[in-house]
Amino acid sequence: MSARVRVPASSSNLGSGFDCVGVAVDRWLVATVIPEPGNLISIENRGSLAAVSVPVSGDLLARGFRAACDAAGVSPTGAAIDATSDIPVGCGLGSSAAALVAGVLLADAALELNLTPQQIVEIATAIEGHPDNVAPAVYGGAVLSVRTPSGLVSTPLSVAAGLELVLVVPPFPSDTKAARALLPKTLPHSDAVLAASRAAALVQGLSSGDGALLGAALDDVLHVPFRRARIPGYDAVVRAAQDAGAFGATLSGAGSAILAIAPRERSTAVGAAMIAAWREIGIEAELIRGSHSVPGATVSHVSQTIPVSTEQL
Amino acid sequence: MSARVRVPASSSNLGSGFDCVGVAVDRWLVATVIPEPGNLISIENRGSLAAVSVPVSGDLLARGFRAACDAAGVSPTGAAIDATSDIPVGCGLGSSAAALVAGVLLADAALELNLTPQQIVEIATAIEGHPDNVAPAVYGGAVLSVRTPSGLVSTPLSVAAGLELVLVVPPFPSDTKAARALLPKTLPHSDAVLAASRAAALVQGLSSGDGALLGAALDDVLHVPFRRARIPGYDAVVRAAQDAGAFGATLSGAGSAILAIAPRERSTAVGAAMIAAWREIGIEAELIRGSHSVPGATVSHVSQTIPVSTEQL
Repeated sequence: MSARVRVPASSSNLGSGFDCVGVAVDRWLVATVIPEPGNLISIENRGSLAAVSVPVSGDLLARGFRAACDAAGVSPTGAAIDATSDIPVGCGLGSSAAALVAGVLLADAALELNLTPQQIVEIATAIEGHPDNVAPAVYGGAVLSVRTPSGLVSTPLSVAAGLELVLVVPPFPSDTKAARALLPKTLPHSDAVLAASRAAALVQGLSSGDGALLGAALDDVLHVPFRRARIPGYDAVVRAAQDAGAFGATLSGAGSAILAIAPRERSTAVGAAMIAAWREIGIEAELIRGSHSVPGATVSHVSQTIPVSTEQL
Repeated sequence: MSARVRVPASSSNLGSGFDCVGVAVDRWLVATVIPEPGNLISIENRGSLAAVSVPVSGDLLARGFRAACDAAGVSPTGAAIDATSDIPVGCGLGSSAAALVAGVLLADAALELNLTPQQIVEIATAIEGHPDNVAPAVYGGAVLSVRTPSGLVSTPLSVAAGLELVLVVPPFPSDTKAARALLPKTLPHSDAVLAASRAAALVQGLSSGDGALLGAALDDVLHVPFRRARIPGYDAVVRAAQDAGAFGATLSGAGSAILAIAPRERSTAVGAAMIAAWREIGIEAELIRGSHSVPGATVSHVSQTIPVSTEQL
């Protein structure tokens, strides 16, 4: 069956929610599939995906498609996939997770696999390595994902109405693998204790809108201290956001984009200040005004559009 | 001015909320103060406090009283303090925090220092070293305390109505200082990441009542693995709680008490199973059925009773 999917971008970590918290962002990967005879997958990548040159076997849409078939115990059929995206690639906005989720959803829709939303998250997470971008791409809104003895649990986080996410995206990518290699093998126990209290502060601060809690939560100790030097202008952009009224700012994922959380009435000024701070060192960044109410992925068959999950915030 | 204070016990950490989360428990330290000429403080300790033999200078009520005077820039007056408590001492139920908070409150009331609730928390925390028992003793309910650039922030945590806390207290204390000395200097980075996701799960699980999140949250990696061997029967009691329907169980503070979180309808069975597990190895433990709605400290002047904070859950 032919199908069309639409999957949002996402910003993960939000400071102290390292590898477990993410939020959907209003940029989209849109893909269609037409089943074909045989078992060959062909992919036409357009938009921001056009710049990604990998063989079809390594294409994340194809990998998601095949993994979904494997998980459902179904032989992959042939498929002609056409994908386009306005999600910047390699900038910490979940373009990989969106492509993986799109591939899984296309297989689910085309081959009627009847996967649950959480199975879709798990299949894409198994390839991606962590669920923080995958879960908001599927469910929308802000999502906490935690590994438990009974499997991965993804749960929507409440976000206070007065908060706004502000993202600024520079015109260069950050190598996620290299950023992960910078993390130390061990941490002082006191830093781990601090990290735990700030992760708790993130969940509580998002839900209550408490600026002091959010400020602490965005001041991460698990990954940002080891990664920020790779992003030219990072400190200046974060300081500019704070000076303009943001509660704090931090790397989106492993960067290169920077995310601020601000009271709604300050968000325009915060975005402008962040853009200006980067411009001062010759970097022309792009603004994405976030909203915590970005919905999750949808699937359409011919004329009908169905949300993958009704658990969106 | 004479005054009387009543301060609840508390259970801290709740697994992954190490040094930052605590909940008030329905046991109480009650103390009265009568100002006296001179600057001598005399203390009469009764109830569970009678077993604590320290000179007056080291008594936590006296230390709290003096620290409050210092913080307010007032010379300490003489005072006759009479205190009694049914909080087990040294069992991880916040008896020290309750005594410190009581001392601060007695000075505040007797000398009309007009301290705010958060000042009271900060004065007691400066002596105690961490706010996790102090904050619920002052505010009641479940409280998250996080150090931020603008000072210590204590914020009430929402607790789902269907949850119940079950505490079992063995007849031996645990040396908190020795328990703290057992913590390692460093942790693997992956454990710190796990700890952060579980602290987030604790806040989210308490508020939503999600059993899988609470199970993960109660399975701490920051302190329990290093402390549990000091409490005979720990593993058996935790397993008994889980088998009887608790979402999980963990040390209360640094022990010796063990705390379980259970669906309300299973809490009687959970308490009985935990008591039985300890009885099997010859330990006769006491049950305290928790409730997350235990109020915070109150102060009475002659005939009027005033809650220290109206921010109770």
